[in-house]
Amino acid sequence: MTHPAAPEPTTPQSSPSEWLTDSNGQIALSIRFQGKPLFQEKSPYQTVEVFDTYSCGKMLTIDSMVMCTEWDEAAYHEMIAQVPMLTHPGVQDVLVIGAGDGGTIREILRHDHVQKITMVEIDEAVIRASQQFLPGIASAFNNPKLDLRVDDGIKFVENATAESYDLIVIDSSDPVGPSEGLFTKSFYEGVFRALRPGGVVTVQSESPSFNPKAFTELNLCLKAVFGSDSVHCYLLHIPTYPTGMWSLTYCAKQGPHPLKDFDYAKAEQFTEAHCMRYYNADVHQAAFCLPTYVRKMING
Amino acid sequence: MTHPAAPEPTTPQSSPSEWLTDSNGQIALSIRFQGKPLFQEKSPYQTVEVFDTYSCGKMLTIDSMVMCTEWDEAAYHEMIAQVPMLTHPGVQDVLVIGAGDGGTIREILRHDHVQKITMVEIDEAVIRASQQFLPGIASAFNNPKLDLRVDDGIKFVENATAESYDLIVIDSSDPVGPSEGLFTKSFYEGVFRALRPGGVVTVQSESPSFNPKAFTELNLCLKAVFGSDSVHCYLLHIPTYPTGMWSLTYCAKQGPHPLKDFDYAKAEQFTEAHCMRYYNADVHQAAFCLPTYVRKMING
Repeated sequence: MTHPAAPEPTTPQSSPSEWLTDSNGQIALSIRFQGKPLFQEKSPYQTVEVFDTYSCGKMLTIDSMVMCTEWDEAAYHEMIAQVPMLTHPGVQDVLVIGAGDGGTIREILRHDHVQKITMVEIDEAVIRASQQFLPGIASAFNNPKLDLRVDDGIKFVENATAESYDLIVIDSSDPVGPSEGLFTKSFYEGVFRALRPGGVVTVQSESPSFNPKAFTELNLCLKAVFGSDSVHCYLLHIPTYPTGMWSLTYCAKQGPHPLKDFDYAKAEQFTEAHCMRYYNADVHQAAFCLPTYVRKMING
Repeated sequence: MTHPAAPEPTTPQSSPSEWLTDSNGQIALSIRFQGKPLFQEKSPYQTVEVFDTYSCGKMLTIDSMVMCTEWDEAAYHEMIAQVPMLTHPGVQDVLVIGAGDGGTIREILRHDHVQKITMVEIDEAVIRASQQFLPGIASAFNNPKLDLRVDDGIKFVENATAESYDLIVIDSSDPVGPSEGLFTKSFYEGVFRALRPGGVVTVQSESPSFNPKAFTELNLCLKAVFGSDSVHCYLLHIPTYPTGMWSLTYCAKQGPHPLKDFDYAKAEQFTEAHCMRYYNADVHQAAFCLPTYVRKMING
């Protein structure tokens, strides 16, 4: 039986199990967890929680929005990190904004040629919760190449030295609360400035199906800053995000094209050596092939 | 604001709006609808309902499982029909099992070279509900090339003349209730027999993330009948199915390979001429590129 009777996210109080619900008001994804939250803290920025789910392992949420689960985090972290890392031939200096769970830096640090990652996460509660309850994701915080700053990513980018990074990853939560400023043109102008010529950026760019307005607006914003021909949206399956269909966006500053300059054989070799769980060279290329209605949302 | 406060699928009674929940007991997708169900009938086989949702148009459900919504039905119907139709060079005789909403035959009948579609749907309530409330999906029921039978697809396939179809589409609901027999080896042996040499089959093959057991078992079953090299799983994004990640499977009986024998230019021209909403030639190819963990689920 794959479909037992519908559960009742409706009456959590009356049940020993509970449901975490991530909703936009019209569509909602609920994930069942056992017992009480393992971590629950109202930080100065947001409510950070960790749940022990029945089928997805431990799950990190911020203001009831799913950030990641142990079960399917590889999709997001491998795709936001390996698509640029396996396109750009020799990333040395990296800036990561957000990404408090640590999955993105874990992926970037698989590449020995990386010299230094500066990571700026505004909320230390996210880091602390992840280190305590998601050690498989938060596994790279002690790496000596990491310069971790608990600070405001927007201000950090404003003050960053020009042309100092080969790769910048904007691994934000959704555009409410502290992440709102990560979805503005002035922020991305700063990102562009901080990037070396030849450098690349990847951005968490929301869902065409769940957040269509944020998705299209961010794409327009990135094209205004990087130029239309240098902005490439790609899709992935994240089963524990509402609607499961999520996007990331690759932008280049006179940098490599994610398909034309892609070294398939090298990526395939890397994928196998590191036992990637979601990413592979075929998926890298396929992710940029958008369904027609998604193409139209961003190409007019 | 893309994320207003979580709604309360929890207290439908106290709210003017309601939520339809599709769940496997651990993960649940809820879609909000207005008013009462537009259609609600307990047929001899199942409960068939149509809802008027807030963000997905009209929605057809069977036993609280989402079958399709007006908003995103194109993904499923175009991908189950156009992938084989644009791979096989000249389909004339088609058998469709299930597919009571009509979307699959609408897609197949875009191709003038089709001579006849025999469609076998067990539950006339599904057809009736779709004709009444989903006219954009159920638009082809009056086509003179259609031979519609309200009958048991399993028995129909058992008694079908050998080697009589170029394309067979198994467009079933999930493997509970009347669709359970559509997930067995003996059924697919019948399908294989009914197929002309050179013919192809597409099958609704469940979700690797939401129904992993049904997904892997069906893949094994199809490989046992068609041979491993002739079975090709492909993925698509269906935002209104739980986890959003769904699979279809293409099988050939000494028939064309869905990538090696694919005519990209012809598919692209067809896509544009028919204003496809999801399918395009790039997506056709990309859909067969599986994330590594999905590959492993079916390749061991």
